[in-house]
Amino acid sequence: MTEQRSLKQEFNGLTLDHVIVHDGTGRVLPTVIVIPTVMGVQPLELRFAERLVALGYHVLVADLFGRRFTPVVDKEPAFAAMGELRADRAALRERLLAIVEEVRKREHVDGDRVAVIGYCFGGQCALDVARAGVDVAAVAAFHGLFDPCGLPAQPIKAKVAAYHGWNDPMVPPEAVVALGNELTAAGADWQIHAYGHVGHGFTNPTAHQLGIAGVAYDEAAERRSWASLVNFLAEALG
Amino acid sequence: MTEQRSLKQEFNGLTLDHVIVHDGTGRVLPTVIVIPTVMGVQPLELRFAERLVALGYHVLVADLFGRRFTPVVDKEPAFAAMGELRADRAALRERLLAIVEEVRKREHVDGDRVAVIGYCFGGQCALDVARAGVDVAAVAAFHGLFDPCGLPAQPIKAKVAAYHGWNDPMVPPEAVVALGNELTAAGADWQIHAYGHVGHGFTNPTAHQLGIAGVAYDEAAERRSWASLVNFLAEALG
Repeated sequence: MTEQRSLKQEFNGLTLDHVIVHDGTGRVLPTVIVIPTVMGVQPLELRFAERLVALGYHVLVADLFGRRFTPVVDKEPAFAAMGELRADRAALRERLLAIVEEVRKREHVDGDRVAVIGYCFGGQCALDVARAGVDVAAVAAFHGLFDPCGLPAQPIKAKVAAYHGWNDPMVPPEAVVALGNELTAAGADWQIHAYGHVGHGFTNPTAHQLGIAGVAYDEAAERRSWASLVNFLAEALG
Repeated sequence: MTEQRSLKQEFNGLTLDHVIVHDGTGRVLPTVIVIPTVMGVQPLELRFAERLVALGYHVLVADLFGRRFTPVVDKEPAFAAMGELRADRAALRERLLAIVEEVRKREHVDGDRVAVIGYCFGGQCALDVARAGVDVAAVAAFHGLFDPCGLPAQPIKAKVAAYHGWNDPMVPPEAVVALGNELTAAGADWQIHAYGHVGHGFTNPTAHQLGIAGVAYDEAAERRSWASLVNFLAEALG
């Protein structure tokens, strides 16, 4: 059984409305921060969180926007909000690290065993947490954006995994090579898994509703990347 | 418990001396063909075979050379023998497909559930089996050579997984991108897992004895790639 409740965090005049997903026992547990896609907190990420709780983790699904979006209907404002955050990667980093700190100080969180995973834009955010050089155990990006943050490079302490669709129209092969080289230069323990014939958004069964070419669910890639994540988190947080 | 025995195969005037590794029950099982590194059949591949038998597979460790080599001591003749095979990829394909057929007709082999995995040069051979378009369920390459075979492209039926060290001096990033594009063009269901700070030969604890820069064991990459292989074979042969 899992329980959910809201965790509100004030940040720069905004109220971020995160969702804690937990097993209800009050045990101190290793913790996974889940950063959603451009559409913000949705049932998709809450389902991932429930699967993580079943694996023995405490989970926070992060609200980066300070608001909720309705899928498809709110596509434009959601992309605009993402664009604003992506336009200032230093400010975005501050926001992300504030969330990590908020999580780390919670009583049911084992602060030495925190991972950050993210989807699409949230995948970029997860990578940005690693790039900040902070002391989190692991970072995983699912169909994340790979463009570098443009900030001074830091040694990366987190183990990094990136699950990538080779046909992702937003992340061409050159960007995969560039990420490999960037993570190598930063000294990260990293792995990138590329999947053939797979586009952007492959973990999301309703991704096609966005109506963007190359953005679609892929059952095999979803299953394979999740299976790898389970091993990856066990290795990093176990 | 596992049992081993020799299986001799006549091929073009040579006697290939394969090793069958099996559980001794005589059950018909899904089967994995293991193609060794440039050094031919060694205790390393026999250990991998034992682990595969423990997972419920029938295994054949293939002898491509028709002879055994002593590690390190026989480095020169082994590399020469590999060079001969790699110089004629059409002839190498014939040899590989003859081995697949030899395996498929055996009474304890479920001919519809055959996978081919290989290491280093054997990884290239495994990919060449996929490239031949033959009807095997899965092909996996560990630190395989990625150079294309130069033969007319065939639609690839096997699921393909390639486990790759990003710092492999024999397989630069351009070759990774080229393999992704080649497998995509051939319609393969493929995945490539790249590992940072990892060189060639990462599954082999004695790889450094070859004395080649960038060729070394890596415990994490070995463990991660094996964990993925277990899932991959279960998916393809299960």
